[in-house]
Amino acid sequence: MDFLLALERPPLVLGVDPRPELHGKDPLADIRRYALEAMEALAPGLCAVKFQLAFFEALGAEGVGLLLELAAAARVFGLPVIFDGKRGDVGSTARAYAEAYLVRFPGSALTVNPYLGLDALAPFLEAARAHGGALFVLVKTSNPGSGFLQDLPVEGRPLYLHLAEALARWEGDGEGFGRVGMVVGATYPEAVAGVRAVAPRAPLLLPGVGAQGGKPLRGPGLLNAASRALFYPGGRPDLEAALKAQAELLKALVE
Amino acid sequence: MDFLLALERPPLVLGVDPRPELHGKDPLADIRRYALEAMEALAPGLCAVKFQLAFFEALGAEGVGLLLELAAAARVFGLPVIFDGKRGDVGSTARAYAEAYLVRFPGSALTVNPYLGLDALAPFLEAARAHGGALFVLVKTSNPGSGFLQDLPVEGRPLYLHLAEALARWEGDGEGFGRVGMVVGATYPEAVAGVRAVAPRAPLLLPGVGAQGGKPLRGPGLLNAASRALFYPGGRPDLEAALKAQAELLKALVE
Repeated sequence: MDFLLALERPPLVLGVDPRPELHGKDPLADIRRYALEAMEALAPGLCAVKFQLAFFEALGAEGVGLLLELAAAARVFGLPVIFDGKRGDVGSTARAYAEAYLVRFPGSALTVNPYLGLDALAPFLEAARAHGGALFVLVKTSNPGSGFLQDLPVEGRPLYLHLAEALARWEGDGEGFGRVGMVVGATYPEAVAGVRAVAPRAPLLLPGVGAQGGKPLRGPGLLNAASRALFYPGGRPDLEAALKAQAELLKALVE
Repeated sequence: MDFLLALERPPLVLGVDPRPELHGKDPLADIRRYALEAMEALAPGLCAVKFQLAFFEALGAEGVGLLLELAAAARVFGLPVIFDGKRGDVGSTARAYAEAYLVRFPGSALTVNPYLGLDALAPFLEAARAHGGALFVLVKTSNPGSGFLQDLPVEGRPLYLHLAEALARWEGDGEGFGRVGMVVGATYPEAVAGVRAVAPRAPLLLPGVGAQGGKPLRGPGLLNAASRALFYPGGRPDLEAALKAQAELLKALVE
């Protein structure tokens, strides 16, 4: 499987951000069961499942083991995987992160942080190209304070647009969508339009749909990611409510 | 133990970046043994041990288990811990990362990425304050391409200095060193001086000493980090050579 096939599926990403406090006495076993059920039930209406690495790491080594198990299971359900780790480091360290996610799980995507520069992102792009994967580079994030560095004026434009243009040049020309995707918060729809204008070939991952107040956005290559709103609708694990929430989101996105 | 006590120790950080290919048939067991021996032998001449999370993640859940075990062992040797993860994410996700490292291991530090803004860094500072820890925010990184965003001109100065000044203001006034440290590559000594000038209270973590070509730098609050040069001197695990390399670095740093 190649991650780019996700772009031909319904433009909705299930964000799996497990919260042990919502899962009874044996939280890891309960998270495993619920996440497997949710992925299986929702898969036909999803382009990908996104695992938020922070919540698995907070559960220790067993949590990381569960993450790797769920990532393998997602592929059994035919579901492309996005590892949401916002990783980024220099040279050989970046290669180790690429190894952990893009090489170990061919056809998957990883979210990455651009602050260290293009040379630090290169090992991720190399691994994505070699293993049918993709990266989503943080461009404009969904949080209220994202402007701190991202909106600084660079040659008369916000830094995030300068970055988006540089990433689009880095990807180069070609047919269809490329492997250098970008993260733009659904909470900033005008930023989504601005980034799309300078980076027509980039798949755009839009987190913040639902719980953070972002509305689903329609358009080629726009992947709407809902985490709490879809995985814990009403603030708790509830598969029936998740299916209803998915139907509503898909109505807004594809009808 | 409070991480700030590290500033009263010899200004040398042992970077543990395990490479399984250097460790025979049962690499995890061998890495465990060698890292424990190295920490015990080198501890008296170190201010901290820095674990590069990427290399443990590349080893899967067992690798992460080993990381947590070595972090606990470091404390038994009286050695402050820096988790080198360059983490960073929005709100509740940042809290999950803080939980995984700063709360679970009181008195430890975590490297963090500033691209998402101060609101995204706030949960890390909160956890550091509550648990005797610290953060090291990426300011100017050691890689050759670090200028891509970090050197962009903002009000006539490179972005990284603008960031360093904002972080110094964010930390506030007070006595002695604060909990908002910064990462500045030893490969850019002029950047170290520039950051120190605008952020007099920030502990500065200087990676890139040795293998990346950075020379050790002396000065209050400067923590020199050597990974390959100290953990794998001559390109392989060798405790005797590590002790010699440490003696040479300390000679340059404290005599």
